Amino acid sequence: MAVPGHRLDRMFNPKVVAVIGDKGPGYMWLRNNMPLKEKGGTLYSVQLDEKEIPGIEALGVKNFTSMKEIPEEIDYAVVAVPRQVSPYVLKDLIENGAHGAGFFTSGFAETGEELGVQLQQKLTEMAREAGFNLVGPNCMGLYLPKAGVRFNDGAPVADDGRIGFLSQSGTHGIMFTLVANALGMHLSRCASFGNAIVLDVSDYLDYLMRDDETDVAGMYVEGVKNGRKFFETLREACKRKPVVVWKGGQTEAGARATMSHTGSLAAPQSVWDGMMRQCGAITTNNLDETTDVMQLLTKAKRPTGPRMALLAQTGGQSVSITDAFAKAGLQVPRFSDQTYASLGEFFNVIGGSYQNPLDMAGTIQGKMETLERILKIVDDDPNVDAMAIELSAMFAARQWKKDPATLDATLDALKAHSARSPKPLLVVLHPAHEAEYVGSIGPKFHERQIPLFQSFERAAAAMNRVLAYHANR
Amino acid sequence: MAVPGHRLDRMFNPKVVAVIGDKGPGYMWLRNNMPLKEKGGTLYSVQLDEKEIPGIEALGVKNFTSMKEIPEEIDYAVVAVPRQVSPYVLKDLIENGAHGAGFFTSGFAETGEELGVQLQQKLTEMAREAGFNLVGPNCMGLYLPKAGVRFNDGAPVADDGRIGFLSQSGTHGIMFTLVANALGMHLSRCASFGNAIVLDVSDYLDYLMRDDETDVAGMYVEGVKNGRKFFETLREACKRKPVVVWKGGQTEAGARATMSHTGSLAAPQSVWDGMMRQCGAITTNNLDETTDVMQLLTKAKRPTGPRMALLAQTGGQSVSITDAFAKAGLQVPRFSDQTYASLGEFFNVIGGSYQNPLDMAGTIQGKMETLERILKIVDDDPNVDAMAIELSAMFAARQWKKDPATLDATLDALKAHSARSPKPLLVVLHPAHEAEYVGSIGPKFHERQIPLFQSFERAAAAMNRVLAYHANR
Repeated sequence: MAVPGHRLDRMFNPKVVAVIGDKGPGYMWLRNNMPLKEKGGTLYSVQLDEKEIPGIEALGVKNFTSMKEIPEEIDYAVVAVPRQVSPYVLKDLIENGAHGAGFFTSGFAETGEELGVQLQQKLTEMAREAGFNLVGPNCMGLYLPKAGVRFNDGAPVADDGRIGFLSQSGTHGIMFTLVANALGMHLSRCASFGNAIVLDVSDYLDYLMRDDETDVAGMYVEGVKNGRKFFETLREACKRKPVVVWKGGQTEAGARATMSHTGSLAAPQSVWDGMMRQCGAITTNNLDETTDVMQLLTKAKRPTGPRMALLAQTGGQSVSITDAFAKAGLQVPRFSDQTYASLGEFFNVIGGSYQNPLDMAGTIQGKMETLERILKIVDDDPNVDAMAIELSAMFAARQWKKDPATLDATLDALKAHSARSPKPLLVVLHPAHEAEYVGSIGPKFHERQIPLFQSFERAAAAMNRVLAYHANR
Repeated sequence: MAVPGHRLDRMFNPKVVAVIGDKGPGYMWLRNNMPLKEKGGTLYSVQLDEKEIPGIEALGVKNFTSMKEIPEEIDYAVVAVPRQVSPYVLKDLIENGAHGAGFFTSGFAETGEELGVQLQQKLTEMAREAGFNLVGPNCMGLYLPKAGVRFNDGAPVADDGRIGFLSQSGTHGIMFTLVANALGMHLSRCASFGNAIVLDVSDYLDYLMRDDETDVAGMYVEGVKNGRKFFETLREACKRKPVVVWKGGQTEAGARATMSHTGSLAAPQSVWDGMMRQCGAITTNNLDETTDVMQLLTKAKRPTGPRMALLAQTGGQSVSITDAFAKAGLQVPRFSDQTYASLGEFFNVIGGSYQNPLDMAGTIQGKMETLERILKIVDDDPNVDAMAIELSAMFAARQWKKDPATLDATLDALKAHSARSPKPLLVVLHPAHEAEYVGSIGPKFHERQIPLFQSFERAAAAMNRVLAYHANR
């Protein structure tokens, strides 16, 4: 177990899982959780609708028509019943001795309707009184890949995840999971917690910060119930590991939307921003920024300073990469005399230049040994803290399509360089007119754990955030 | 001819084109310009290297070993010779009575080398004295799809282009062309003009603003030689049509890069920004922002106000789309009572909401008639100036993959709506974990001229820029 003795430890490492109220034809929740059985766990169903039972049993899942019949204590339950039924289900769960449950059921305070508000109040009182770990309601619940518990059937069940993620939105929780996976990053644990009526983001974060299976934590949050508790937990968490915080409802109109979405009252943005700074959290504004930062935190060496060496394929891009990094607040210094002397031995300045940025158009011409030579020279420069290189969808992709081995050779060279060097290397490949092709070769970058960004601006923003995080520690 | 009597008119509508100094194995410049012949023009080659001539003739192009042998006046020439030879070629061109030429040849003042500076000075004096239309040097020259003249063999030769583009960078000129084409937007004319020693951006812009085949103009520019002339030309151009200006070298480090790239000295950014505001230009910072704005200008109805209706597939995205548009300075108003009454007849608020933003998760469920009903109701709202809708790579893509006809039906519905409504409709589809699939279906959006954005932020930024342009007129 990851954090022995923690209130959430049993729910976060479940062996016995029950799905309450799943329905055909999809049986989404049972299907999501089938991997549990391969991982040695036990999956039960509770469904009293006679019409649904044959479909459930066809999946090889034991169904009960009452929770009382389940012969053991439940570690984690998924509740997908109509809202009016949910208090009765919670009562049964408490009587079972169940350790916790994710309530997919929605239609509570977030609707603004009286019935929804009353039902939410009822659930809150019951769960608080019993000390029950209620996740949600109005959420996708837990994704625990090592245990085989999932909230989406596209999410992997890899055992090597080191990123923990918390999301007040089901969509953003699932999307983060799917995008991170597509980028070659796996999760340790994820909680989608919706209305957060009992367990709030602070409770989950308290677990993640102590969890030795989680190196980096991230979250999408729309509001917190107890600001003081959140502040203290986040501050402590940021001391232990990087925490990336994506806040939903940063604007007045956005905050109105969070009220309809999860019934969250947003704090004034200036107060929130101040809290983030004091805690040392890494703040982001959307999914792209969040996954970009995660790539840098998990795939690259730790940056030690803001001085970038910028390598572009052509002159126009050498200007653009420089503007992007300089605007983000990073530095583009002159190289050392030694570097200029070494580059001067072979660099073609007709149609190229190597002031920093480098315009490699006339020099590389597809020659891998030249690229490796340039990387080595620039990397050795004491004026350089980190490197960013543009791969061109215009030039390189043409060669790669003709001879795919050249793509593999380039990526192997970048990977080998990154393994050797103590400095981070960021790679930018703009999908542009080659969106489908660039999408198709993404896995080649990601399986090599090469941090890949879709624009100079996104790479620069991620670099800036990670640098600021380390500078503030 | 597009602008009869204009100094550049003959060069911008060429019938006789010569390529000077092209080399195998690729014969890039001859291949680029082969479409000229299909368009009824004449393509000549000048190459005195005996080894290259068989390859040129194998392409079906008539080669001369001296320009003097060409039996007619050249409208436009492409010069791809070593820099030392370029003055002699220019002399021959002037003697031929040639109307203009793009000098691909580089290695001039941008290198900082004495020889390069001297050669550039020589070319400048010769061309000025002769009143010769020298494009560049250190550039890709002209792309004139209607004439069949190209600077890249991936660029289309469509006759329906209405966008003019000017670029001091060859890469950015080509990339804009390729990306615009991938997005279903064709060009009327494009000039890549590099060091701009004779013709400067103002000269080309003067043509584009008068050109009745160009509705919208854009440019990537690193520096201007004559600030007063540029200001006056741009101000006049912005009165006639939208002009999008992407400036390279906005930062100190970026300006250093422009010096190495095209020998451009950047104006202080604050002076530049003031000039852009005074002229009423639409300013952008990179290729993505430029093509995003172009989509809105050419594919959508003209926006008349900042009040957005925002339609998302799920709750989390309804918050994100709202934050993005509100941060960009757009408004997300409450709907009219009539709209709430109409939506209230069928909208599912359990797992959804319709305050503005709309969270359509529980309501649409793939039913096309429901989507059309929502679009119609919201579009009729007098509080709404424009609409943005999220299509989800998570939900919708799953359905589209299973049943591709549902994608076509959705896009047909969006297209039909946009044709009927006087209000712009922006579509956002985040590539996320489905990058390859989303890339593959892009053409379906673009052939229907649906403005498609890769993120809420990019859609909002484009909307904001176009609104500001119209507000300032």
